[in-house]
Amino acid sequence: MRYYRVPNEAVRRLPVYLRGLFTLSEDGHESTSSKKLADLIGVTSWQIRKDFSYFGDFGTRGVGYNIKKLIKEINKILKLDTGHKAALVGVGNLGSAVLSYPGFKMYGFELATAFDADPDKIGKTINNITIEDTCKIKELKKRKVVIGIIAVPRHAAQETADALVSAGVKAILNFSPCYLTVPKKVKIITIDIAMDLARLPYYMRAS
Amino acid sequence: MRYYRVPNEAVRRLPVYLRGLFTLSEDGHESTSSKKLADLIGVTSWQIRKDFSYFGDFGTRGVGYNIKKLIKEINKILKLDTGHKAALVGVGNLGSAVLSYPGFKMYGFELATAFDADPDKIGKTINNITIEDTCKIKELKKRKVVIGIIAVPRHAAQETADALVSAGVKAILNFSPCYLTVPKKVKIITIDIAMDLARLPYYMRAS
Repeated sequence: MRYYRVPNEAVRRLPVYLRGLFTLSEDGHESTSSKKLADLIGVTSWQIRKDFSYFGDFGTRGVGYNIKKLIKEINKILKLDTGHKAALVGVGNLGSAVLSYPGFKMYGFELATAFDADPDKIGKTINNITIEDTCKIKELKKRKVVIGIIAVPRHAAQETADALVSAGVKAILNFSPCYLTVPKKVKIITIDIAMDLARLPYYMRAS
Repeated sequence: MRYYRVPNEAVRRLPVYLRGLFTLSEDGHESTSSKKLADLIGVTSWQIRKDFSYFGDFGTRGVGYNIKKLIKEINKILKLDTGHKAALVGVGNLGSAVLSYPGFKMYGFELATAFDADPDKIGKTINNITIEDTCKIKELKKRKVVIGIIAVPRHAAQETADALVSAGVKAILNFSPCYLTVPKKVKIITIDIAMDLARLPYYMRAS
């Protein structure tokens, strides 16, 4: 199937649809309507149908979508079907939360390794992952790690990004609340919980 | 100024623009072009101008946007100008990261209190906030807390949401990777780091 350029906002929603489809599948469903999926994840069925239209139409009128087929198709579009290795840098509170997070496998990710600069942390094992010295980031290339997760303090974020880029990572998930400069070929997504919080009051009712 | 209904995707981007404007302001700038702001935060200037068009036009051709005025206006649109009190429930790794996070004040939030069910944690103080017993969530109403942040294990997430809703919170930021049921009048945003990670491979180059 030939895919057209999918808007960023649709790419943002596809993993949300995936999670909803996983939930429906776990609950024993084999097919779903766009309405059922929409109600579960809290979007409109119109939005779902529109997003799916960018890469063809999987549904059959009156029958709905085959869940397994749809999961496979979305995984292919998001390039999650091949599996990806990720490395975490920074094992403070947030990094520890990332290490303990059970949800990566669902999307085909393997958290392969973690780094920290603190000698007290290096050598310790969390969730079967042994923390290594940050000076070893450069060895990532040999290990086929393509994604870096940055959870270091703000002042160390840019040098961490530079080290990850030098080690060949192609994409970065950044939890440091600052702008990082990376080459254009590297995709970076910054997560700032304050920014997510900042969207809430807009929707609050005056009561 | 009368505001029209702003699309959710624009509401999502406004805090990003705000953060960019804060950065420019800290760096001593008084005005900015949409291009300068766009380059800093990594969107297109067309997108910025389009988003601003939903609530009027603040810019002057050839002069650009007055940064202070624009910050004030966006704060008003997002209803951040009045300030909001938030309560955290769950002080594990992720909750501790939230407690230590310095970025809330920037958007007018005050993290007023934190709750945990673990007797070992209750009474401890992190970042000037003393952890209280979760059974005290019901007292939030008296304290004018309108936002709840859920960082508890998955199995405790729904009862936490129920307790927060009973205590009168109007909006919830949920870090538990599951769907929570809340009344329609309560806005809930779920943050799942695996879903953010799942957007990255789409943008990775084959090289």
